[in-house]
Amino acid sequence: MTFFERLEARSRAADSLVCVGLDPDFKKHRAAELASFNKAIIESTAEFAACYKPNIAFYEQFGIPGLQALEESLKAIPPEIPVICDAKRGDMGNTAQAYARALFETWGFGAATVNAYQGSDAVAPFLAYPDKAIFVLCRTSNPGSREFQEQRLENGRMLYQQVALTATSWSTNVGLVVGATAPEELADVRKLVPAAPLLVPGVGAQGGKPEDVVRAAGYQHGKMVVNASRSIMYADEGSGFALAAGNAARTLRDELRAAAALPA
Amino acid sequence: MTFFERLEARSRAADSLVCVGLDPDFKKHRAAELASFNKAIIESTAEFAACYKPNIAFYEQFGIPGLQALEESLKAIPPEIPVICDAKRGDMGNTAQAYARALFETWGFGAATVNAYQGSDAVAPFLAYPDKAIFVLCRTSNPGSREFQEQRLENGRMLYQQVALTATSWSTNVGLVVGATAPEELADVRKLVPAAPLLVPGVGAQGGKPEDVVRAAGYQHGKMVVNASRSIMYADEGSGFALAAGNAARTLRDELRAAAALPA
Repeated sequence: MTFFERLEARSRAADSLVCVGLDPDFKKHRAAELASFNKAIIESTAEFAACYKPNIAFYEQFGIPGLQALEESLKAIPPEIPVICDAKRGDMGNTAQAYARALFETWGFGAATVNAYQGSDAVAPFLAYPDKAIFVLCRTSNPGSREFQEQRLENGRMLYQQVALTATSWSTNVGLVVGATAPEELADVRKLVPAAPLLVPGVGAQGGKPEDVVRAAGYQHGKMVVNASRSIMYADEGSGFALAAGNAARTLRDELRAAAALPA
Repeated sequence: MTFFERLEARSRAADSLVCVGLDPDFKKHRAAELASFNKAIIESTAEFAACYKPNIAFYEQFGIPGLQALEESLKAIPPEIPVICDAKRGDMGNTAQAYARALFETWGFGAATVNAYQGSDAVAPFLAYPDKAIFVLCRTSNPGSREFQEQRLENGRMLYQQVALTATSWSTNVGLVVGATAPEELADVRKLVPAAPLLVPGVGAQGGKPEDVVRAAGYQHGKMVVNASRSIMYADEGSGFALAAGNAARTLRDELRAAAALPA
Protein backbone atom coordinates (compact mmCIF):
# COMPACT_ATOMS: atom_id res chain seq x y z
CA MET A 1 0.00 0.00 0.00
CA THR A 2 1.36 3.43 -0.86
CA PHE A 3 1.46 6.21 1.71
CA PHE A 4 -1.31 8.12 -0.07
CA GLU A 5 -3.50 4.99 -0.09
CA ARG A 6 -2.95 4.64 3.63
CA LEU A 7 -3.74 8.32 4.14
CA GLU A 8 -6.94 8.01 2.12
CA ALA A 9 -8.04 4.91 4.04
CA ARG A 10 -7.48 6.58 7.40
CA SER A 11 -9.08 9.82 6.30
CA ARG A 12 -12.15 7.92 5.14
CA ALA A 13 -12.34 5.76 8.26
CA ALA A 14 -12.26 8.83 10.50
CA ASP A 15 -14.21 10.97 8.01
CA SER A 16 -11.64 13.63 8.76
CA LEU A 17 -9.23 15.83 6.83
CA VAL A 18 -7.53 16.98 10.03
CA CYS A 19 -3.76 16.81 10.26
CA VAL A 20 -2.75 17.36 13.88
CA GLY A 21 0.53 19.26 14.08
CA LEU A 22 2.76 18.24 16.98
CA ASP A 23 4.80 21.42 17.40
CA PRO A 24 5.81 22.05 21.00
CA ASP A 25 6.45 25.68 21.96
CA PHE A 26 9.95 26.20 23.33
CA LYS A 27 8.76 28.68 25.92
CA LYS A 28 6.12 26.40 27.37
CA HIS A 29 8.04 23.17 27.98
CA ARG A 30 11.21 21.57 29.15
CA ALA A 31 12.53 18.75 26.99
CA ALA A 32 11.85 16.23 29.75
CA GLU A 33 8.09 16.83 29.68
CA LEU A 34 7.62 16.90 25.91
CA ALA A 35 6.88 13.21 25.43
CA SER A 36 4.21 12.99 28.10
CA PHE A 37 2.62 16.22 26.87
CA ASN A 38 2.54 14.90 23.31
CA LYS A 39 1.16 11.54 24.41
CA ALA A 40 -1.76 13.26 26.13
CA ILE A 41 -2.42 15.34 23.00
CA ILE A 42 -2.25 12.26 20.78
CA GLU A 43 -4.59 10.27 23.00
CA SER A 44 -7.21 13.01 22.99
CA THR A 45 -7.00 13.84 19.28
CA ALA A 46 -6.48 10.42 17.64
CA GLU A 47 -10.19 9.85 16.99
CA PHE A 48 -10.34 13.00 14.87
CA ALA A 49 -6.98 12.77 13.14
CA ALA A 50 -6.45 11.81 9.50
CA CYS A 51 -2.74 12.07 10.22
CA TYR A 52 -0.14 13.60 12.53
CA LYS A 53 2.59 15.99 11.52
CA PRO A 54 5.44 16.79 13.89
CA ASN A 55 7.58 19.63 12.59
CA ILE A 56 11.05 18.40 13.49
CA ALA A 57 12.36 21.96 14.03
CA PHE A 58 10.44 22.14 17.30
CA TYR A 59 12.31 19.09 18.59
CA GLU A 60 15.69 20.07 17.17
CA GLN A 61 15.54 23.34 19.12
CA PHE A 62 15.73 21.30 22.34
CA GLY A 63 18.81 19.47 21.08
CA ILE A 64 19.23 15.73 21.40
CA PRO A 65 16.79 15.47 24.36
CA GLY A 66 14.13 17.00 22.09
CA LEU A 67 14.72 14.34 19.46
CA GLN A 68 14.56 11.65 22.12
CA ALA A 69 11.18 13.06 23.15
CA LEU A 70 10.01 12.93 19.53
CA GLU A 71 11.07 9.30 19.29
CA GLU A 72 9.10 8.55 22.45
CA SER A 73 6.07 10.55 21.28
CA LEU A 74 5.83 8.66 17.98
CA LYS A 75 5.26 5.41 19.85
CA ALA A 76 1.95 6.78 21.11
CA ILE A 77 0.52 7.26 17.62
CA PRO A 78 -1.87 4.42 16.68
CA PRO A 79 -0.40 2.43 13.75
CA GLU A 80 -3.36 3.10 11.46
CA ILE A 81 -2.74 6.86 11.57
CA PRO A 82 -0.09 8.02 9.06
CA VAL A 83 2.66 10.38 10.21
CA ILE A 84 4.20 13.11 8.06
CA CYS A 85 7.50 14.60 9.18
CA ASP A 86 7.51 18.30 8.42
CA ALA A 87 11.22 18.72 7.76
CA LYS A 88 11.35 20.77 4.54
CA ARG A 89 14.58 18.99 3.68
CA GLY A 90 16.28 19.52 0.38
CA ASP A 91 19.79 18.67 -0.73
CA MET A 92 21.43 16.71 -3.52
CA GLY A 93 23.00 13.39 -4.39
CA ASN A 94 24.33 11.42 -1.47
CA THR A 95 23.16 14.13 0.96
CA ALA A 96 19.56 13.87 -0.19
CA GLN A 97 19.96 10.12 0.18
CA ALA A 98 21.12 10.65 3.75
CA TYR A 99 18.06 12.80 4.54
CA ALA A 100 15.72 10.24 2.98
CA ARG A 101 17.41 7.49 4.97
CA ALA A 102 17.15 9.56 8.16
CA LEU A 103 13.46 10.34 7.77
CA PHE A 104 12.13 7.15 6.20
CA GLU A 105 14.40 4.45 7.63
CA THR A 106 15.98 5.71 10.85
CA TRP A 107 12.87 7.61 12.02
CA GLY A 108 10.34 5.51 10.11
CA PHE A 109 8.11 8.37 8.95
CA GLY A 110 5.60 7.56 6.23
CA ALA A 111 6.03 10.90 4.46
CA ALA A 112 8.04 14.10 4.67
CA THR A 113 7.88 17.65 3.40
CA VAL A 114 10.62 18.50 0.91
CA ASN A 115 11.96 21.69 -0.66
CA ALA A 116 12.53 21.19 -4.39
CA TYR A 117 14.63 24.29 -5.15
CA GLN A 118 17.51 21.99 -6.15
CA GLY A 119 15.46 20.15 -8.77
CA SER A 120 14.45 16.59 -9.59
CA ASP A 121 17.71 14.76 -8.94
CA ALA A 122 17.74 16.29 -5.46
CA VAL A 123 14.28 14.90 -4.76
CA ALA A 124 14.79 11.51 -6.42
CA PRO A 125 16.29 9.76 -3.36
CA PHE A 126 13.04 10.40 -1.46
CA LEU A 127 11.06 8.85 -4.31
CA ALA A 128 13.15 5.70 -4.30
CA TYR A 129 10.91 4.43 -1.47
CA PRO A 130 7.71 3.17 -3.16
CA ASP A 131 5.70 3.03 0.07
CA LYS A 132 6.69 6.53 1.20
CA ALA A 133 5.59 9.94 -0.04
CA ILE A 134 6.70 13.54 -0.05
CA PHE A 135 4.88 16.85 0.00
CA VAL A 136 6.86 19.42 -2.00
CA LEU A 137 6.69 23.06 -0.87
CA CYS A 138 4.63 24.86 -3.47
CA ARG A 139 2.87 27.98 -2.14
CA THR A 140 3.53 28.47 1.56
CA SER A 141 1.33 30.26 4.07
CA ASN A 142 3.72 33.01 5.21
CA PRO A 143 3.59 36.67 4.11
CA GLY A 144 6.95 36.53 2.28
CA SER A 145 5.99 33.50 0.23
CA ARG A 146 5.13 35.79 -2.68
CA GLU A 147 8.71 37.06 -2.93
CA PHE A 148 9.98 34.13 -4.95
CA GLN A 149 6.99 31.81 -5.29
CA GLU A 150 4.94 34.37 -7.20
CA GLN A 151 7.72 35.46 -9.50
CA ARG A 152 6.25 35.36 -12.99
CA LEU A 153 8.28 33.17 -15.33
CA GLU A 154 8.92 33.80 -19.00
CA ASN A 155 6.56 30.93 -19.80
CA GLY A 156 3.70 32.86 -18.17
CA ARG A 157 3.45 30.71 -15.07
CA MET A 158 4.30 31.77 -11.57
CA LEU A 159 7.09 29.85 -9.89
CA TYR A 160 4.72 28.00 -7.52
CA GLN A 161 2.65 26.85 -10.52
CA GLN A 162 5.79 25.62 -12.25
CA VAL A 163 6.77 23.76 -9.07
CA ALA A 164 3.27 22.25 -8.80
CA LEU A 165 3.32 20.94 -12.37
CA THR A 166 6.92 19.78 -12.40
CA ALA A 167 7.05 18.13 -8.99
CA THR A 168 3.83 16.16 -9.44
CA SER A 169 5.12 14.90 -12.79
CA TRP A 170 7.98 13.10 -11.03
CA SER A 171 5.90 10.47 -9.24
CA THR A 172 2.43 9.71 -7.96
CA ASN A 173 4.03 9.72 -4.52
CA VAL A 174 4.40 13.51 -4.68
CA GLY A 175 1.90 15.81 -2.98
CA LEU A 176 2.16 19.56 -2.47
CA VAL A 177 2.21 21.99 0.44
CA VAL A 178 -0.13 24.91 -0.19
CA GLY A 179 -1.05 27.33 2.58
CA ALA A 180 -4.61 27.97 3.76
CA THR A 181 -3.85 31.68 3.98
CA ALA A 182 -3.84 31.94 0.19
CA PRO A 183 -7.21 30.40 -0.84
CA GLU A 184 -7.01 31.71 -4.42
CA GLU A 185 -3.64 30.11 -5.00
CA LEU A 186 -4.94 26.95 -3.32
CA ALA A 187 -7.89 26.82 -5.76
CA ASP A 188 -5.46 27.48 -8.59
CA VAL A 189 -3.19 24.58 -7.58
CA ARG A 190 -6.20 22.27 -7.11
CA LYS A 191 -7.26 23.04 -10.70
CA LEU A 192 -3.73 22.74 -12.09
CA VAL A 193 -3.06 19.31 -10.54
CA PRO A 194 -6.44 17.81 -9.66
CA ALA A 195 -5.06 14.45 -8.55
CA ALA A 196 -2.26 15.63 -6.26
CA PRO A 197 -2.72 15.19 -2.51
CA LEU A 198 -2.40 18.55 -0.77
CA LEU A 199 -1.07 19.31 2.69
CA VAL A 200 -2.61 22.59 3.76
CA PRO A 201 -1.15 24.37 6.80
CA GLY A 202 -2.23 27.76 8.06
CA VAL A 203 -5.69 27.39 9.59
CA GLY A 204 -6.09 28.36 13.23
CA ALA A 205 -3.25 30.48 14.62
CA GLN A 206 -2.23 31.68 11.14
CA GLY A 207 -5.74 32.80 10.23
CA GLY A 208 -6.77 30.48 7.39
CA LYS A 209 -10.48 29.54 7.45
CA PRO A 210 -11.68 25.91 7.10
CA GLU A 211 -14.59 26.93 4.86
CA ASP A 212 -12.28 28.84 2.51
CA VAL A 213 -9.98 25.84 2.26
CA VAL A 214 -12.78 23.44 1.34
CA ARG A 215 -14.32 25.95 -1.07
CA ALA A 216 -10.91 26.29 -2.75
CA ALA A 217 -9.83 22.68 -2.86
CA GLY A 218 -12.86 20.46 -2.25
CA TYR A 219 -13.48 17.80 0.36
CA GLN A 220 -12.08 14.48 -0.71
CA HIS A 221 -10.48 11.85 1.48
CA GLY A 222 -6.85 11.38 0.58
CA LYS A 223 -6.70 14.46 -1.66
CA MET A 224 -6.18 17.00 1.11
CA VAL A 225 -5.29 17.20 4.77
CA VAL A 226 -5.56 20.44 6.70
CA ASN A 227 -3.05 21.04 9.44
CA ALA A 228 -3.55 22.88 12.71
CA SER A 229 -0.87 22.85 15.39
CA ARG A 230 -0.98 25.61 18.01
CA SER A 231 -4.76 26.02 17.92
CA ILE A 232 -5.10 22.35 18.90
CA MET A 233 -2.11 21.78 21.20
CA TYR A 234 -2.60 25.00 23.14
CA ALA A 235 -6.38 25.33 22.92
CA ASP A 236 -6.24 25.51 26.71
CA GLU A 237 -3.06 25.81 28.72
CA GLY A 238 -4.40 24.69 32.08
CA SER A 239 -4.90 21.18 33.38
CA GLY A 240 -7.66 20.62 30.83
CA PHE A 241 -5.27 20.96 27.87
CA ALA A 242 -5.77 17.43 26.56
CA LEU A 243 -9.54 17.64 26.61
CA ALA A 244 -9.39 21.06 24.96
CA ALA A 245 -7.04 19.72 22.27
CA GLY A 246 -9.46 16.91 21.51
CA ASN A 247 -12.32 19.37 21.30
CA ALA A 248 -10.34 21.66 19.00
CA ALA A 249 -9.46 18.77 16.68
CA ARG A 250 -13.10 17.64 16.63
CA THR A 251 -14.28 21.18 15.90
CA LEU A 252 -11.87 21.51 12.98
CA ARG A 253 -12.98 18.13 11.63
CA ASP A 254 -16.61 19.21 11.90
CA GLU A 255 -16.00 22.62 10.34
CA LEU A 256 -14.31 20.99 7.36
CA ARG A 257 -17.15 18.48 7.01
CA ALA A 258 -19.74 21.22 7.30
CA ALA A 259 -17.98 23.25 4.65
CA ALA A 260 -18.23 20.27 2.32
CA ALA A 261 -22.02 20.44 2.62
CA LEU A 262 -22.21 24.15 1.72
CA PRO A 263 -23.30 25.15 -1.80
CA ALA A 264 -20.23 25.95 -3.94
CA MET B 1 33.01 40.41 15.52
CA THR B 2 30.63 39.15 12.84
CA PHE B 3 30.89 35.65 11.47
CA PHE B 4 32.20 36.87 8.15
CA GLU B 5 34.89 38.92 9.91
CA ARG B 6 35.94 35.81 11.80
CA LEU B 7 35.94 33.82 8.58
CA GLU B 8 38.08 36.42 6.85
CA ALA B 9 40.54 36.55 9.75
CA ARG B 10 40.94 32.80 9.80
CA SER B 11 41.16 32.54 6.04
CA ARG B 12 43.91 35.17 6.01
CA ALA B 13 45.80 33.62 8.92
CA ALA B 14 45.87 30.23 7.19
CA ASP B 15 46.10 31.76 3.70
CA SER B 16 43.48 29.25 2.74
CA LEU B 17 40.07 29.23 1.09
CA VAL B 18 39.52 25.58 1.97
CA CYS B 19 36.30 24.57 3.68
CA VAL B 20 36.67 21.02 4.94
CA GLY B 21 33.37 19.14 4.69
CA LEU B 22 32.77 16.64 7.49
CA ASP B 23 30.34 14.29 5.78
CA PRO B 24 30.70 10.71 6.95
CA ASP B 25 29.64 8.01 4.53
CA PHE B 26 26.91 5.75 5.94
CA LYS B 27 28.39 2.66 4.32
CA LYS B 28 31.85 3.17 5.77
CA HIS B 29 31.16 3.75 9.48
CA ARG B 30 29.18 2.76 12.50
CA ALA B 31 27.83 5.63 14.59
CA ALA B 32 30.12 4.70 17.46
CA GLU B 33 33.28 5.36 15.47
CA LEU B 34 32.23 8.62 13.82
CA ALA B 35 33.58 10.97 16.47
CA SER B 36 37.04 9.46 16.61
CA PHE B 37 37.21 9.33 12.80
CA ASN B 38 36.21 13.00 12.56
CA LYS B 39 38.67 13.99 15.27
CA ALA B 40 41.52 12.41 13.33
CA ILE B 41 40.40 14.21 10.15
CA ILE B 42 40.13 17.51 11.99
CA GLU B 43 43.54 17.15 13.59
CA SER B 44 45.21 16.47 10.27
CA THR B 45 43.39 19.16 8.26
CA ALA B 46 43.11 22.06 10.74
CA GLU B 47 46.29 23.76 9.54
CA PHE B 48 44.85 24.07 6.03
CA ALA B 49 41.23 24.85 6.91
CA ALA B 50 39.59 28.26 6.57
CA CYS B 51 36.50 26.63 8.06
CA TYR B 52 34.73 23.33 8.64
CA LYS B 53 31.33 22.37 7.29
CA PRO B 54 29.53 19.32 8.61
CA ASN B 55 26.43 18.55 6.57
CA ILE B 56 23.99 17.54 9.30
CA ALA B 57 22.19 15.07 7.00
CA PHE B 58 25.10 12.69 7.30
CA TYR B 59 24.69 12.61 11.09
CA GLU B 60 20.88 12.53 11.05
CA GLN B 61 21.01 9.36 8.95
CA PHE B 62 22.58 7.57 11.94
CA GLY B 63 19.78 8.79 14.22
CA ILE B 64 20.43 10.20 17.67
CA PRO B 65 23.81 8.42 18.02
CA GLY B 66 24.92 10.23 14.88
CA LEU B 67 24.02 13.60 16.36
CA GLN B 68 25.85 12.69 19.56
CA ALA B 69 28.92 11.94 17.42
CA LEU B 70 28.57 15.33 15.73
CA GLU B 71 28.42 17.03 19.13
CA GLU B 72 31.56 15.19 20.16
CA SER B 73 33.33 15.95 16.86
CA LEU B 74 32.72 19.69 17.13
CA LYS B 75 34.72 19.81 20.35
CA ALA B 76 37.83 18.88 18.38
CA ILE B 77 37.64 21.94 16.11
CA PRO B 78 40.09 24.66 17.25
CA PRO B 79 38.10 27.73 18.41
CA GLU B 80 39.69 30.05 15.84
CA ILE B 81 38.29 28.00 12.95
CA PRO B 82 34.68 28.93 12.06
CA VAL B 83 32.10 26.18 11.57
CA ILE B 84 29.25 26.30 9.08
CA CYS B 85 26.40 23.86 9.51
CA ASP B 86 25.19 22.72 6.13
CA ALA B 87 21.54 22.19 6.95
CA LYS B 88 19.68 23.90 4.09
CA ARG B 89 16.90 24.70 6.53
CA GLY B 90 13.98 26.83 5.53
CA ASP B 91 10.64 27.33 7.21
CA MET B 92 8.54 30.24 8.45
CA GLY B 93 7.62 32.20 11.56
CA ASN B 94 8.04 30.35 14.81
CA THR B 95 9.37 27.28 12.95
CA ALA B 96 12.20 29.25 11.36
CA GLN B 97 12.88 30.63 14.82
CA ALA B 98 13.10 27.08 16.13
CA TYR B 99 15.62 26.12 13.43
CA ALA B 100 17.71 29.23 14.11
CA ARG B 101 17.65 28.46 17.83
CA ALA B 102 18.60 24.84 17.16
CA LEU B 103 21.56 25.67 14.91
CA PHE B 104 22.90 28.85 16.51
CA GLU B 105 22.09 28.39 20.21
CA THR B 106 21.62 24.70 20.95
CA TRP B 107 24.37 23.55 18.58
CA GLY B 108 26.39 26.76 18.65
CA PHE B 109 27.24 26.88 14.93
CA GLY B 110 28.62 30.18 13.62
CA ALA B 111 26.76 29.97 10.33
CA ALA B 112 24.28 27.78 8.48
CA THR B 113 23.08 27.17 4.95
CA VAL B 114 19.47 28.22 4.39
CA ASN B 115 16.90 27.69 1.63
CA ALA B 116 15.07 30.95 0.89
CA TYR B 117 12.16 29.60 -1.20
CA GLN B 118 9.76 30.86 1.48
CA GLY B 119 11.01 34.46 1.29
CA SER B 120 12.46 37.09 3.60
CA ASP B 121 10.23 36.64 6.65
CA ALA B 122 11.18 32.97 6.65
CA VAL B 123 14.88 33.86 6.75
CA ALA B 124 14.60 36.77 9.19
CA PRO B 125 14.87 34.67 12.38
CA PHE B 126 18.34 33.53 11.29
CA LEU B 127 19.37 37.15 10.76
CA ALA B 128 18.27 38.17 14.25
CA TYR B 129 21.66 36.92 15.48
CA PRO B 130 24.16 39.70 14.67
CA ASP B 131 27.24 37.52 15.21
CA LYS B 132 25.95 34.65 13.06
CA ALA B 133 25.63 34.33 9.29
CA ILE B 134 23.78 32.35 6.68
CA PHE B 135 24.61 31.15 3.20
CA VAL B 136 21.47 31.13 1.06
CA LEU B 137 21.18 28.47 -1.66
CA CYS B 138 21.58 30.27 -4.95
CA ARG B 139 22.93 28.08 -7.77
CA THR B 140 23.64 24.58 -6.55
CA SER B 141 26.14 22.13 -7.98
CA ASN B 142 23.80 19.28 -8.95
CA PRO B 143 22.61 18.46 -12.49
CA GLY B 144 18.95 19.28 -11.74
CA SER B 145 19.74 22.70 -10.32
CA ARG B 146 18.81 24.27 -13.66
CA GLU B 147 15.24 23.00 -13.44
CA PHE B 148 14.00 25.81 -11.20
CA GLN B 149 17.10 27.93 -10.54
CA GLU B 150 17.56 28.79 -14.20
CA GLN B 151 13.94 29.56 -14.90
CA ARG B 152 13.91 32.90 -16.67
CA LEU B 153 11.71 35.44 -14.92
CA GLU B 154 9.57 38.08 -16.55
CA ASN B 155 12.06 40.71 -15.34
CA GLY B 156 14.76 39.09 -17.47
CA ARG B 157 16.72 37.56 -14.63
CA MET B 158 17.07 33.91 -13.89
CA LEU B 159 15.69 32.73 -10.56
CA TYR B 160 19.16 32.20 -9.05
CA GLN B 161 20.11 35.75 -10.00
CA GLN B 162 16.96 37.07 -8.37
CA VAL B 163 17.77 35.04 -5.25
CA ALA B 164 21.34 36.38 -5.23
CA LEU B 165 20.23 40.00 -5.43
CA THR B 166 17.28 39.73 -3.07
CA ALA B 167 18.89 37.61 -0.35
CA THR B 168 22.05 39.70 -0.11
CA SER B 169 19.90 42.83 0.22
CA TRP B 170 18.48 41.51 3.51
CA SER B 171 21.66 41.77 5.56
CA THR B 172 25.44 41.87 5.31
CA ASN B 173 25.34 38.58 7.21
CA VAL B 174 24.04 36.82 4.09
CA GLY B 175 26.37 34.88 1.81
CA LEU B 176 25.43 32.57 -1.06
CA VAL B 177 25.93 28.94 -2.02
CA VAL B 178 27.07 28.64 -5.63
CA GLY B 179 28.38 25.35 -6.99
CA ALA B 180 31.84 24.89 -8.47
CA THR B 181 30.37 22.75 -11.23
CA ALA B 182 28.84 25.83 -12.85
CA PRO B 183 31.78 28.23 -13.24
CA GLU B 184 29.92 30.57 -15.60
CA GLU B 185 27.09 31.05 -13.16
CA LEU B 186 29.65 31.45 -10.37
CA ALA B 187 31.35 34.27 -12.30
CA ASP B 188 27.95 35.76 -12.96
CA VAL B 189 27.01 35.76 -9.26
CA ARG B 190 30.40 37.20 -8.32
CA LYS B 191 29.79 40.09 -10.72
CA LEU B 192 26.19 40.58 -9.59
CA VAL B 193 27.01 40.77 -5.86
CA PRO B 194 30.72 41.55 -5.58
CA ALA B 195 30.71 41.88 -1.80
CA ALA B 196 28.83 38.71 -0.86
CA PRO B 197 30.80 35.87 0.71
CA LEU B 198 30.40 32.71 -1.35
CA LEU B 199 30.36 29.12 -0.20
CA VAL B 200 31.36 27.00 -3.16
CA PRO B 201 30.82 23.24 -2.98
CA GLY B 202 31.44 20.81 -5.78
CA VAL B 203 35.20 20.51 -6.24
CA GLY B 204 36.74 17.08 -5.85
CA ALA B 205 34.24 14.21 -6.03
CA GLN B 206 31.69 16.32 -7.94
CA GLY B 207 34.18 17.39 -10.59
CA GLY B 208 34.58 21.16 -10.09
CA LYS B 209 38.13 22.44 -10.74
CA PRO B 210 39.93 24.75 -8.27
CA GLU B 211 41.41 26.85 -11.07
CA ASP B 212 37.98 27.36 -12.67
CA VAL B 213 36.56 28.47 -9.33
CA VAL B 214 39.27 31.06 -8.74
CA ARG B 215 39.11 32.26 -12.34
CA ALA B 216 35.36 32.72 -11.94
CA ALA B 217 35.21 34.28 -8.50
CA GLY B 218 38.66 35.56 -7.58
CA TYR B 219 40.87 34.75 -4.61
CA GLN B 220 40.01 36.93 -1.67
CA HIS B 221 40.06 35.96 1.98
CA GLY B 222 36.59 36.08 3.46
CA LYS B 223 34.85 36.43 0.11
CA MET B 224 34.87 32.77 -0.81
CA VAL B 225 35.43 29.37 0.71
CA VAL B 226 35.65 26.26 -1.42
CA ASN B 227 34.33 23.06 0.08
CA ALA B 228 35.59 19.54 -0.45
CA SER B 229 34.26 16.65 1.61
CA ARG B 230 34.69 13.16 0.20
CA SER B 231 37.94 13.93 -1.64
CA ILE B 232 39.51 14.94 1.69
CA MET B 233 37.87 12.55 4.18
CA TYR B 234 38.27 9.50 2.00
CA ALA B 235 41.47 10.40 0.16
CA ASP B 236 42.78 7.11 1.49
CA GLU B 237 40.67 4.49 3.18
CA GLY B 238 43.42 2.54 4.87
CA SER B 239 45.20 3.25 8.11
CA GLY B 240 46.81 6.32 6.56
CA PHE B 241 43.45 8.06 6.10
CA ALA B 242 44.24 11.00 8.40
CA LEU B 243 47.57 11.75 6.78
CA ALA B 244 45.97 11.46 3.34
CA ALA B 245 43.15 13.81 4.39
CA GLY B 246 45.69 16.39 5.56
CA ASN B 247 47.56 16.06 2.28
CA ALA B 248 44.37 16.43 0.26
CA ALA B 249 43.39 19.57 2.18
CA ARG B 250 46.87 21.01 1.69
CA THR B 251 46.79 20.21 -2.01
CA LEU B 252 43.43 21.95 -2.44
CA ARG B 253 44.71 24.98 -0.52
CA ASP B 254 47.78 25.10 -2.74
CA GLU B 255 45.81 24.64 -5.97
CA LEU B 256 43.55 27.53 -5.04
CA ARG B 257 46.55 29.69 -4.14
CA ALA B 258 48.32 28.76 -7.38
CA ALA B 259 45.23 29.60 -9.39
CA ALA B 260 45.27 33.06 -7.82
CA ALA B 261 48.72 33.61 -9.33
CA LEU B 262 47.64 32.64 -12.86
CA PRO B 263 47.01 35.37 -15.43
CA ALA B 264 43.26 36.06 -15.71
